[in-house]
Amino acid sequence: MDAGNDVRGNFEVKDGACEPPRKIAKLDISGDNEADKESEVSPRCTFEGFKIDKVLNDNPQNKILFLQGRFDGSENKAVVLLEKTPFCTDNANHLLCKDTNLKETLQNDIYHTYDVYPDPKLNALKATVIYPATDKHVQKYIAQDVHLVEETAEDYEKITLPYLNQSQFSVQWVYNILEKKKESERILYEDCDPETGFILIPDMKWDLKDTSRLYLSAIVQHRALKSLRDLGPEHLPLLKNILMSGQKAIQDKYGVPPSKLRIYFHYQPSYYHLHVHFTHVKLEAPGSGVERAHLLTDVINNIKLLPDYYKLKPLMFTVKENDPLYNRFKEAGKL
Amino acid sequence: MDAGNDVRGNFEVKDGACEPPRKIAKLDISGDNEADKESEVSPRCTFEGFKIDKVLNDNPQNKILFLQGRFDGSENKAVVLLEKTPFCTDNANHLLCKDTNLKETLQNDIYHTYDVYPDPKLNALKATVIYPATDKHVQKYIAQDVHLVEETAEDYEKITLPYLNQSQFSVQWVYNILEKKKESERILYEDCDPETGFILIPDMKWDLKDTSRLYLSAIVQHRALKSLRDLGPEHLPLLKNILMSGQKAIQDKYGVPPSKLRIYFHYQPSYYHLHVHFTHVKLEAPGSGVERAHLLTDVINNIKLLPDYYKLKPLMFTVKENDPLYNRFKEAGKL
Repeated sequence: MDAGNDVRGNFEVKDGACEPPRKIAKLDISGDNEADKESEVSPRCTFEGFKIDKVLNDNPQNKILFLQGRFDGSENKAVVLLEKTPFCTDNANHLLCKDTNLKETLQNDIYHTYDVYPDPKLNALKATVIYPATDKHVQKYIAQDVHLVEETAEDYEKITLPYLNQSQFSVQWVYNILEKKKESERILYEDCDPETGFILIPDMKWDLKDTSRLYLSAIVQHRALKSLRDLGPEHLPLLKNILMSGQKAIQDKYGVPPSKLRIYFHYQPSYYHLHVHFTHVKLEAPGSGVERAHLLTDVINNIKLLPDYYKLKPLMFTVKENDPLYNRFKEAGKL
Repeated sequence: MDAGNDVRGNFEVKDGACEPPRKIAKLDISGDNEADKESEVSPRCTFEGFKIDKVLNDNPQNKILFLQGRFDGSENKAVVLLEKTPFCTDNANHLLCKDTNLKETLQNDIYHTYDVYPDPKLNALKATVIYPATDKHVQKYIAQDVHLVEETAEDYEKITLPYLNQSQFSVQWVYNILEKKKESERILYEDCDPETGFILIPDMKWDLKDTSRLYLSAIVQHRALKSLRDLGPEHLPLLKNILMSGQKAIQDKYGVPPSKLRIYFHYQPSYYHLHVHFTHVKLEAPGSGVERAHLLTDVINNIKLLPDYYKLKPLMFTVKENDPLYNRFKEAGKL
């Protein structure tokens, strides 16, 4: 479910949802590189001489291709994301007109399919070029085999938790938000209570305009909660507060009612400081699939039904083969 | 999560996963309609004179547009699905070459974006035309507001169950499969035990070739089980049998190991005869989102933890505004 088409952020666990990546090199792509001392290479507005070294990934569902290559004469890597663009509904009548060429490919009963060749001006692709690209950029886009793993309560104690404790992922960027050192101007809602409080802040993936693509995160004030696994009946006031206050803040600010919100945790999360995703139910958000997402209302109801639910329940999660956790589970004979 | 881009099937609840639609009219789209008496109109291979009456829906994520219109001089409705096509990785070097025109749209640090105008021959769209189309075809593609509903155990007894009993949806097509009257040649695995048996059969959405898009359904022999809500500890042998035997049959036939399978129920299901979806974890299948899917392993583990789990647990589900169940919940003040 991870579409992998989120260009910025998430290069490291600590980059998580909100922090933009560091600058790597200043670059001039205007064609004249007199002015800029830091730029090593200046790709002109052309792919002439571009060499594709590798197809990193291909997403046929979203029609996106991820390539690694080099511009002519340069040793630096470039990552190119090539994507088909959404239709502009206002232009539809220009696409279905006499100047559009059709080639029939199938006819069966009332169903007909065609290859359609419209005016090229109406059919641009979008390219995103990351240049120069580091190995981390390349790694981010490489197609990885994904496995579904069943983590029992014992697996969590013996495999996952020791791994998390050893890895000591930094969540300083989260503390910067909670302490209002960063991004304070973006905060939608804040509750400072150390036990039940949280900050609600738009995710970088959302443009803040199209409410059908709404995406915010609630980050809890409590610093000892890593994930779902830590939750018990003592956290019901926190969870209910996130649900009710988060819904209300979004309804008040964006006019989106609670019945149109998908509100969920990830397991495994991308960073281990408890947070909740709020997305519009229409948005097919990466990570909203059943193999990773856990609805906040389900979490509340599960704890009400069985207080130790998240201490006892085997949890399924997906893991990429290049994730160290994959090797930990494999070494333990769990894969 | 319902992408709505599945052209055939599912026009009625009973059409569910496997049965193709009935013929509505035989149609000749070759341009000469001398031969075919049943055809009322013959669209030529052109959109000349085509009038768009309505944009039914727009899926910007998958780049698909759903239109309703009429061919010149005809009163019959046509439904047109216009979609951007996946990239052909073999052609990537022809897309990134000197003949491709670029227009820069953004430059920030190492990130550059462009509008890309490639050779039109390499950039065809795909059109699917349903013509003549019935109101049911049109209805199927109209964008519907979707709501997330919390169904308590009491709501199930008082709202959902009476609605299901009154509606008496036909699942004859399912019985045709179980009785081998239809589609018997497509069966991958069969266990005839009336309590613990099931039939595993490819879903019509899968082409049977690309295993990364694998999609099969397990349909239980037991005829009294409608959905998750009916499951209790007495069904653990059935559920475990579906899990183990389904995984093994798929591994044996298609070489896809259990860790690459997403195995889940829908709630609400599209037809009320218990069935389980088996999809490749890479496939972003419609209905695999957390708001509709329930992993089979989770169902087994929940019943083990709490035998009455599915009798007690509030279940979230999504409902479209044109679904009669939406009105039932609304009338009950639950929305």
